Amino acid sequence: MFDFKIENECGDARACEIKLAHGIVKTPVFMPVGTAGSVKGLTNEMINATNAQIILGNTYHLMLRPGEERMQNFGGLHKFMNWSKPILTDSGGFQVMSLSGLRKITEDGVVFRSHIDGTKFMLTPERSIEIQYKIGSDLTMIFDECPSFPITYKKAKKSMELSLRWARRSKDAYINRYGYGLFGIVQGSVFEDLREISAKSLQEIEFDGYAIGGLAVGEGQDEMLKTIDFTILFLPKNKPRYLMGVGKPYDLIKAVARGIDMFDCVLPSRVARNGLAYTRNGEIRLKNAQYSDSQMPIDKKCFCYACKNHTLGYIQHLFKNKEILAATLMTIHNLTFYQDLMSAIRNSIINKTFHKNITIDELFA
Amino acid sequence: MFDFKIENECGDARACEIKLAHGIVKTPVFMPVGTAGSVKGLTNEMINATNAQIILGNTYHLMLRPGEERMQNFGGLHKFMNWSKPILTDSGGFQVMSLSGLRKITEDGVVFRSHIDGTKFMLTPERSIEIQYKIGSDLTMIFDECPSFPITYKKAKKSMELSLRWARRSKDAYINRYGYGLFGIVQGSVFEDLREISAKSLQEIEFDGYAIGGLAVGEGQDEMLKTIDFTILFLPKNKPRYLMGVGKPYDLIKAVARGIDMFDCVLPSRVARNGLAYTRNGEIRLKNAQYSDSQMPIDKKCFCYACKNHTLGYIQHLFKNKEILAATLMTIHNLTFYQDLMSAIRNSIINKTFHKNITIDELFA
Repeated sequence: MFDFKIENECGDARACEIKLAHGIVKTPVFMPVGTAGSVKGLTNEMINATNAQIILGNTYHLMLRPGEERMQNFGGLHKFMNWSKPILTDSGGFQVMSLSGLRKITEDGVVFRSHIDGTKFMLTPERSIEIQYKIGSDLTMIFDECPSFPITYKKAKKSMELSLRWARRSKDAYINRYGYGLFGIVQGSVFEDLREISAKSLQEIEFDGYAIGGLAVGEGQDEMLKTIDFTILFLPKNKPRYLMGVGKPYDLIKAVARGIDMFDCVLPSRVARNGLAYTRNGEIRLKNAQYSDSQMPIDKKCFCYACKNHTLGYIQHLFKNKEILAATLMTIHNLTFYQDLMSAIRNSIINKTFHKNITIDELFA
Repeated sequence: MFDFKIENECGDARACEIKLAHGIVKTPVFMPVGTAGSVKGLTNEMINATNAQIILGNTYHLMLRPGEERMQNFGGLHKFMNWSKPILTDSGGFQVMSLSGLRKITEDGVVFRSHIDGTKFMLTPERSIEIQYKIGSDLTMIFDECPSFPITYKKAKKSMELSLRWARRSKDAYINRYGYGLFGIVQGSVFEDLREISAKSLQEIEFDGYAIGGLAVGEGQDEMLKTIDFTILFLPKNKPRYLMGVGKPYDLIKAVARGIDMFDCVLPSRVARNGLAYTRNGEIRLKNAQYSDSQMPIDKKCFCYACKNHTLGYIQHLFKNKEILAATLMTIHNLTFYQDLMSAIRNSIINKTFHKNITIDELFA
């Protein structure tokens, strides 16, 4: 339960404020992923300098290492990693499916083996909520089943229904505190009636916010946007809406235009480590020969540490030499770009100039 | 040619000031190694925060990548990596011996193959000095032959004599500028008379400073200190003295006590990346199980970013997860510890409390 306020609207796009225990989050918001207690390559000082307002932690990774006991001894994830702003944790459901070894899904939950050392674990809605409580997450996600894509209607329906039963159990296990919240996750793959049933049933259970899950799994942007379009009709206006695991800059713009408030994605940080930079002028593949002698920054209009201090030529050199600093500088840049983009989108909503076909150029003009 | 001043002495130990083109260096000084244009894992801001006054670059690495042409196009290493304080470069001699593939030493120089891609290169005294000029090093090292250890007297003598001829050619090739300097390197392995000949002959050529090379190659601390003892007698007092590639904290203390002013070593940064921290209370192997739940910093009395913000337990967690941040935090700490140590040594010399058996405890008391 937390305070949520829609400050401005422009078409279906919203600029909101979410008041959490560890700080205020202005939306639309992009949450950098700090998988296992670290946004890869960055100090907290650097994460703060990107203007990130909230980061995401992965329950699956954190339960394996450092483990819930240790986490609790340290006083939760905020203290463990010394991060003072809000944290959202996913429930572990997605990683159990994508990372873990042998797993078995029953009505009760999922038994799986750690991808690190094969140790057997069990996650149930109750356990996931309990671990997220120990982590101290400002925002907790229900434990759901994340089916693969593509999937038949029949399987998608069965999975969505199981997730609904788990959503109820997640809610029952959740300890309500002011400044903290529990999000339901709409499932149903790309099937309109399943998404409708899921969205409506979750609202009967009542959550502090609603996420759209099961997208950005290979369905493509068109299918994703279509699914958002028919799903969001069934989501309440007075709660934050979170599109999980998305996405590229234009995915964010188009999803905000449809009424999404929150995003997380490993993309900007992961591709940064591989040499792909997002800029106001499009993508730059740093390793391309054309940048070897470039004395330009990654993005002339960017004020991040990398752009203010270093050239494309130097950063390419760091990549060629496999220097750690390459990953750090690139991650600083990409995450700063994402925050700048979200901030530009928010301003555009407030100024009533935002629309679903707006370009990055127009946003930064 | 640069201004050099002995500000204080305590026994044979000296506190000096070296005025270089890119800044003043107070000695005794430890130079972090920025092999190929990056002190591994650190931004320049972080290097500065350790209080480093000067860093070391490797001519061998820089000539292979980014290459001297590119380096020159960028306006030298200072601009290439955006480092505004002094830089010392070694001559490439040591790395040619330790890293490169097939090599052939002649009177003229060394032909070798790059350890990166096998490309053939030639380094001569003239080429090394020219490349260091293009790098823009405040302090240039002569090109010498670095023999292996142990070595017979006969071979050590032959190598030392070749290095002397190369020293003369290095001096001839060097372009003198105010604020910049060329250092001679005393060779002769552990043989007293060879070190004497080398030291005296170098002084006849005349250099701006004198280094002791060919140590810290496996001879052990006793042998190293003995060699310093008999070599330093033949070095002039009015020039800086640099012990190359050294060393551990107690090596530094004991070498300063013998009159050494300058040091460089990959040790503190390299072991940092492997989980070894130097502290006021000795070495800490971060990966040891005993630190898993420790909520203490690496070193309670250290003011570095890692110690002010993070616990041993968290940093161990980062290591276990192979997080880049582990290397960054540990390197920040170890290099800060080294700078703090050098600063404590300098203060102790100024206060006349320094002596060759002084402990780290006493220095930091």
